[in-house]
Amino acid sequence: MSSTFGRLFRVTTFGESHGPAVGVVVDGMPPGIAVDAAAVQHELDRRRPGQSALTTQRQEADRAEILSGVFEGVTTGTPIAILVRNTDQRSKDYDALRDVYRPGHADFAYAEKYGVRDHRGGGRSSGRETVGRVAAGALARTALASVGVRIVGGTVRVGDVAAARRDWDEVERNPVRCPDADAAEAMAAAITAARDAKDSIGGVVEVVATGVPAGWGDPTMHKLDAQLGAAMLSIPATKGVEIGGGFAMAARHGSETNDVVEDGRYRTNWSGGVSGGISNGADVVVRVAVRPATSIARPQQAATAAGGSTTIAIEGRHDPCICPRVVPVAEAMLAIALVDAWLGQRALRGRDR
Amino acid sequence: MSSTFGRLFRVTTFGESHGPAVGVVVDGMPPGIAVDAAAVQHELDRRRPGQSALTTQRQEADRAEILSGVFEGVTTGTPIAILVRNTDQRSKDYDALRDVYRPGHADFAYAEKYGVRDHRGGGRSSGRETVGRVAAGALARTALASVGVRIVGGTVRVGDVAAARRDWDEVERNPVRCPDADAAEAMAAAITAARDAKDSIGGVVEVVATGVPAGWGDPTMHKLDAQLGAAMLSIPATKGVEIGGGFAMAARHGSETNDVVEDGRYRTNWSGGVSGGISNGADVVVRVAVRPATSIARPQQAATAAGGSTTIAIEGRHDPCICPRVVPVAEAMLAIALVDAWLGQRALRGRDR
Amino acid sequence: MSSTFGRLFRVTTFGESHGPAVGVVVDGMPPGIAVDAAAVQHELDRRRPGQSALTTQRQEADRAEILSGVFEGVTTGTPIAILVRNTDQRSKDYDALRDVYRPGHADFAYAEKYGVRDHRGGGRSSGRETVGRVAAGALARTALASVGVRIVGGTVRVGDVAAARRDWDEVERNPVRCPDADAAEAMAAAITAARDAKDSIGGVVEVVATGVPAGWGDPTMHKLDAQLGAAMLSIPATKGVEIGGGFAMAARHGSETNDVVEDGRYRTNWSGGVSGGISNGADVVVRVAVRPATSIARPQQAATAAGGSTTIAIEGRHDPCICPRVVPVAEAMLAIALVDAWLGQRALRGRDR
Amino acid sequence: MSSTFGRLFRVTTFGESHGPAVGVVVDGMPPGIAVDAAAVQHELDRRRPGQSALTTQRQEADRAEILSGVFEGVTTGTPIAILVRNTDQRSKDYDALRDVYRPGHADFAYAEKYGVRDHRGGGRSSGRETVGRVAAGALARTALASVGVRIVGGTVRVGDVAAARRDWDEVERNPVRCPDADAAEAMAAAITAARDAKDSIGGVVEVVATGVPAGWGDPTMHKLDAQLGAAMLSIPATKGVEIGGGFAMAARHGSETNDVVEDGRYRTNWSGGVSGGISNGADVVVRVAVRPATSIARPQQAATAAGGSTTIAIEGRHDPCICPRVVPVAEAMLAIALVDAWLGQRALRGRDR
Repeated sequence: MSSTFGRLFRVTTFGESHGPAVGVVVDGMPPGIAVDAAAVQHELDRRRPGQSALTTQRQEADRAEILSGVFEGVTTGTPIAILVRNTDQRSKDYDALRDVYRPGHADFAYAEKYGVRDHRGGGRSSGRETVGRVAAGALARTALASVGVRIVGGTVRVGDVAAARRDWDEVERNPVRCPDADAAEAMAAAITAARDAKDSIGGVVEVVATGVPAGWGDPTMHKLDAQLGAAMLSIPATKGVEIGGGFAMAARHGSETNDVVEDGRYRTNWSGGVSGGISNGADVVVRVAVRPATSIARPQQAATAAGGSTTIAIEGRHDPCICPRVVPVAEAMLAIALVDAWLGQRALRGRDR
Repeated sequence: MSSTFGRLFRVTTFGESHGPAVGVVVDGMPPGIAVDAAAVQHELDRRRPGQSALTTQRQEADRAEILSGVFEGVTTGTPIAILVRNTDQRSKDYDALRDVYRPGHADFAYAEKYGVRDHRGGGRSSGRETVGRVAAGALARTALASVGVRIVGGTVRVGDVAAARRDWDEVERNPVRCPDADAAEAMAAAITAARDAKDSIGGVVEVVATGVPAGWGDPTMHKLDAQLGAAMLSIPATKGVEIGGGFAMAARHGSETNDVVEDGRYRTNWSGGVSGGISNGADVVVRVAVRPATSIARPQQAATAAGGSTTIAIEGRHDPCICPRVVPVAEAMLAIALVDAWLGQRALRGRDR
Repeated sequence: MSSTFGRLFRVTTFGESHGPAVGVVVDGMPPGIAVDAAAVQHELDRRRPGQSALTTQRQEADRAEILSGVFEGVTTGTPIAILVRNTDQRSKDYDALRDVYRPGHADFAYAEKYGVRDHRGGGRSSGRETVGRVAAGALARTALASVGVRIVGGTVRVGDVAAARRDWDEVERNPVRCPDADAAEAMAAAITAARDAKDSIGGVVEVVATGVPAGWGDPTMHKLDAQLGAAMLSIPATKGVEIGGGFAMAARHGSETNDVVEDGRYRTNWSGGVSGGISNGADVVVRVAVRPATSIARPQQAATAAGGSTTIAIEGRHDPCICPRVVPVAEAMLAIALVDAWLGQRALRGRDR
Repeated sequence: MSSTFGRLFRVTTFGESHGPAVGVVVDGMPPGIAVDAAAVQHELDRRRPGQSALTTQRQEADRAEILSGVFEGVTTGTPIAILVRNTDQRSKDYDALRDVYRPGHADFAYAEKYGVRDHRGGGRSSGRETVGRVAAGALARTALASVGVRIVGGTVRVGDVAAARRDWDEVERNPVRCPDADAAEAMAAAITAARDAKDSIGGVVEVVATGVPAGWGDPTMHKLDAQLGAAMLSIPATKGVEIGGGFAMAARHGSETNDVVEDGRYRTNWSGGVSGGISNGADVVVRVAVRPATSIARPQQAATAAGGSTTIAIEGRHDPCICPRVVPVAEAMLAIALVDAWLGQRALRGRDR
């Protein structure tokens, strides 16, 4: 029950960081869509560690193999399974952690929940689980592209540095994936400082969908924004999500934030493209709060499974700021949630073929 | 598909603001729990409009009738349907709005989605839909109480005024439902000022669950925080949700925010009681961004269904700040999501009776 | 979880036989469909007891009230709640049964499952739960009619008497609801004989959908026939279901039963309109095995909750053969399952509006 | 949506007969259960073709690889993905069928539903999809064994030959998998005769679960028998399912078929272990109608995609009677449905750990 997102476009991930493989089964992909395996690989490469000095230096080849659901380059409407073997695992790195609950990590909660715990690298709670999300997201993006929807995203805050612009073409030009070249430099400096201090730093990622027609999302419980909330908060290390004006609207008046329709579209976008839980034709704008990476090299006090206390320094190869690598994951989840909402609207009010 | 929340504890609301009734069906309520109809009514009374000068003066009696699932005062494990008749409706108030899309409202999105729209008072998008949520939440609270979980909540921000304390006993003593008596006064002043200016104002609601044992929540897609995200963002007028440290963690370092387990529980709570999507034994802390009410008496430009433009002033009886009435709804959704997670954990790892 | 059928067209029933009311919430009904409240009432009247000497003489008025989801005579796409008050209940009739497990009934299983049991007339296991199904089925039929699908059904076997013809226009002309006037008389005689012997008798109901286009049903787990199996076996007192040739195919050869497509449609229909779990354009033909009614006036040995044994004679007003009243219920479930499959196909491969 | 069975114990299969692989993801498996990879392989071997002269001579090694969810030989509570590579595929055998709709097969329905069709060996509609079911069933059986539930099954009818005994230990001793050694010989003769006539023959498979406690199954829509109906009718080539007395009850009286509880258990079992949709402590008995294999070597008329007609003889390596190989699949689906019902009951009324 737990590892599936979506009702009509259903994404089920599997795999632990140090098991044989991670992957995903995507069920509900419409048939007849040309799937470019390179597009899947491209998104996995964006998620991959080791892309710059600002991210972990682990090397994961992450070659995707499509096992089913695609025939002669086109989706058949049957489940698409995608497999990525785990390779650069170094399980031994984690032997010392078998009976230690790393601060800020999910180790304790996992132990309490399951009784059994794969302690190697976080197991299922590892960021590596997002490989399946990103692969599924690549399929979702392909499907969305067929109806004119495009997904972009970037890091819009690191520590105290906020992006002032949304130049999405800039994102892949800097290692922070910031849509503001100037802010990107300051963000990189903040990340480097955190890493040098054997520490980590948090941030905010923004993802945007353009071209979404009005009508997607299913009130009252599967509202589009509710699904986006679930989608984003299911990503490891996220602790908040907001749509459009978000928390800033707490300090505003209705006369400022009431978006008005003019000539069939919205002039302002405090609603972030979602009104009453339904897309309203404006850009769908979502921001995600990303906590500082919990794995830091600085010595920390930690609890042991036996009930005692110890001191650990997590020496492995870890990201000082997760935001750059959360970007493709948040984009993927946005795409997945949108396809699900799209198909829901087609079921409710589309036309039969 | 759209109107049901939860997988094991399933809450399905129905009803429009100006139809014959609103209500809810709760499926999955464990049997053998004494249900106090007065407890349901108590929560509905908290949600009810007209409780103070700060809220709308509409009078809704909101008498709950339990139609099924309770026998001799005890739940039977079968669906519990609860019905609340609509009474003080004044549908005529809305005649002028049949072909107008109110700014900030979901009118346009509903029209685009469904083609058909019950324009009277927002129809299904009305806050009145939350009657069913609150009734279901009362049942959820009763179930949670049997395992020692308690839900509290309050308004912690209105405009620029933030609560500095969390004195939950204070909440029902002031009309803002603020857990800080001093802040409550300033909040009330801000709300009054907005109302007098024929305007509205936003805020933030915080809800907290105490006594939640470690282990609730189902990674990776039905994480507890993901479900809380969906739960809160399905409430009308919410535009953001955060858990524990939330967006503030963007500006922090890992060395500050890594919660440590000591003697089996957490000393700090940046995680808001949820680690890796699983409750960790600390208080579950959720904050919800509430936009300014979209119905304001000030004249606004509005689009018409015909594609033109008009000016409207929404003269009805509306809340200048929704927060006080969102509090019981957010508490209800927290309770509902927690029961669902609890039963999920019992399915996964409980003991057979 | 338990009381909802369907994924896109979701039917949630509620209510016990001797509680205040029974009813249903239908979520996912497409908007813009004219709903005739009389059509709902017509189906409820067909299900109602007391229609002939062959059925129970209980009188249930069963007036349906539509509480939501319909505005100005047209569906709005929001949940449609339908309420039917219980009236002619005579709970006292059942006082003697509080601690007795009636033979063949679900009393023991309910007690074991829930611990708590509403013993009055079967509570939730009562045939009265089907009121909600039939009301929902009336909506489903209305939706299906808009795409040219028509549902018929009748009793095709009672005891040793089998219908030789399928004259569906005959069904409502005889109290057995048999599509063969000659067989109907023999069936009526068998039922009367069973009743006179203070006994009951079983039978088979057949329901057929015509006009179903090819392509409905979702392999491999939500195949159309699988959903029909679930739909029919969720009806009280059913113990078997077969599609097309069904069990008779066990004694056949492939050369006999391989339906062939000719000019785009099937000449024979051993498949019962479903191939590989997908409608194939032929009539969808489903038969349901109905056990003899478990409530009989003849004295029977029965277990008591205390672990002892007693003798009971169920004197109430009961059907000696349930088939005539199962017909509208099986038709309803067929309609519901078909709408769900239809919308699934529209989601997968329909066109956006 | 389509390829997942179950709500709490969720089984998602993927893969086509002639793609790279088939497999399954099992989500909801309780943690802490020792999983014997050999047990999975054992069940796959039972399903495998080429086991006797009575089954197809295709050779499929079907080596199962567990990709996730098991750590140090024990389940972790996270999704268990199992992969089986396709090897002996001979896709070329099917080139002639690209534009032909084989009689009795799902080719036409698939083409109509999806527009795109993997014509090689049935693609997703192939019996090969059941590899994933059987692998998941092996896990389900392991879980059930921990609570004392055991699954058996066999072929109880082929053509006109019915098994008179239920000697389950006999099943694996004869190639028909019949629990009656005498009947097995006659069945084998009937199958051989069909094969020699370039034809195929149908049959009935029975599966039984012993040790099921009372209380499993969720009325009213997820009744145990309803789920069993869905489970069995989702297996390729099945056209009917019955529980306990099944269709034979149509010709019986209530005084014969009303099972009575005595000393806390049932003396007779017309109900097949399920009362009111809930297990009642008696053996759960399910029979499945299996149609004659649709692939026969005898020349048949067939439709072409272009709308014409042709004659084909399906020369490949096919089963003249599918029953022996349906047995392990039906057992698997019984096990899967039971685990799902078990966990449902634990959620509803179990005890917290």
